[in-house]
Amino acid sequence: MKKPIGIFDSGIGGLTVLKEILNAMPGEDTIYLGDTARVPYGAKSAETVTRYSLENARFLLKFDIKLLVVACNTASAYCLPRLKQELPIPVIGVIEPGARKAVEVTKTKRVGVIGTEGTIRSGAYFDAIKAINPAIAVFIKPCPLFVPLAEEGWTNNQIARLTAQTYLHYIKKQWIDTLILGCTHYPLFKGVISDIMGEDVMLIDSGHETAAEVFKCLMDKNLLETVSSGQNTHRFFVTDSPERFKQVGSKFMTANLDAVELVNVGS
Amino acid sequence: MKKPIGIFDSGIGGLTVLKEILNAMPGEDTIYLGDTARVPYGAKSAETVTRYSLENARFLLKFDIKLLVVACNTASAYCLPRLKQELPIPVIGVIEPGARKAVEVTKTKRVGVIGTEGTIRSGAYFDAIKAINPAIAVFIKPCPLFVPLAEEGWTNNQIARLTAQTYLHYIKKQWIDTLILGCTHYPLFKGVISDIMGEDVMLIDSGHETAAEVFKCLMDKNLLETVSSGQNTHRFFVTDSPERFKQVGSKFMTANLDAVELVNVGS
Repeated sequence: MKKPIGIFDSGIGGLTVLKEILNAMPGEDTIYLGDTARVPYGAKSAETVTRYSLENARFLLKFDIKLLVVACNTASAYCLPRLKQELPIPVIGVIEPGARKAVEVTKTKRVGVIGTEGTIRSGAYFDAIKAINPAIAVFIKPCPLFVPLAEEGWTNNQIARLTAQTYLHYIKKQWIDTLILGCTHYPLFKGVISDIMGEDVMLIDSGHETAAEVFKCLMDKNLLETVSSGQNTHRFFVTDSPERFKQVGSKFMTANLDAVELVNVGS
Repeated sequence: MKKPIGIFDSGIGGLTVLKEILNAMPGEDTIYLGDTARVPYGAKSAETVTRYSLENARFLLKFDIKLLVVACNTASAYCLPRLKQELPIPVIGVIEPGARKAVEVTKTKRVGVIGTEGTIRSGAYFDAIKAINPAIAVFIKPCPLFVPLAEEGWTNNQIARLTAQTYLHYIKKQWIDTLILGCTHYPLFKGVISDIMGEDVMLIDSGHETAAEVFKCLMDKNLLETVSSGQNTHRFFVTDSPERFKQVGSKFMTANLDAVELVNVGS
């Protein structure tokens, strides 16, 4: 019996990670949980985000998943060690893969990180980069408005551009050559961010790097589905408003979001 | 023994209502609950918002409050009748007072309403206005970005102005003479909205009208504290991140937010 990959996010943003996973591993079954009743996690405390994340993970475990992807930067930042400790399966977050890639590609040894308030405040990217190479200078900036802008579908208009300019003003002055998009919503702003930062700055999409890490982990453990039958199952669960998830989710990935099921994962 | 007024909101926005209550009734004690662990309510379903609201109300009831103010438009829109039915004390929401005032002041009989997705989708303002005078034409527009903009403190910059222009474009063409600010965060954008709509359009601040309704209700029931001792107690509870509540809350009201206590109201 084929076991699925489990993925959770605070809401819709994790679909950008799921999209990368499906691109890299088209033979896999997946189960996605969006905690839309309690979204967003970005401005909430470590304790609250940890509690919610454990509930999400326990829900997904019921489906006999072979690996858990924490497709939310805030949750990865606050509680990945705790999830790894509590769960009997491999757990992969979105911070480490992005940090590792940034360290690999930076030539100037100056890296920028943008994310939610929680992700930035946690220092998780800063710590992950410094753990690999303490000589790299890291410049951080929270960009809380990007998430609501993405959900409104305003990712390439003048408001998105002005917002990005305001947020990136400080980062742009730091002579970085690598910028980590440390929130699953941010790849939708790649065009605008790239215009502002210039072509000499490489943008790191954490979701893309995470998919590569999932691939490697499954291959190492001999759990990879190497043959795509074209008959894969992709289930979607949300804790609130399936209709809104389908509607807004279509801005994030083109997959079929027809069957979104409502569940209660809270204690 | 003096009984306090209880007030809850999904988060910080209700502080604009509390401010109006303190202005109108300086002799009252108050207890405020911001459900910051589950904020925002604006894009969540009626069922979820009702569940959260009942939990908030039950928490405040423990303090022997004499009246409950539902200082959240989304919660008022979705579950005011249910709260009135379940609670043994008077319950006042923010929809009815705003709607009544708009009906009272409109001369052209054309009224606009802006609010969160939930408030607008519920049709609560539309229904409340039509119930008083079915001849009034009502024009609605959800403005989801105003809440995160207010919390970022961007209420009067070019981004706020462009966002308001985009959202109000449709409403402005309807020849309204009255616009209800149907979200507790929106009074912070009065300057920008007023500039765009022009001086012939009257802005209705639901929080201000709600405070008048609370005053009237307490007076009618002989529950009003007419003498201010200058020694009133104002307690603040949040379900997450007291520090963030203090910091962002200071943009909403100048009262002393030093003592913000963390509680868990969830089931």
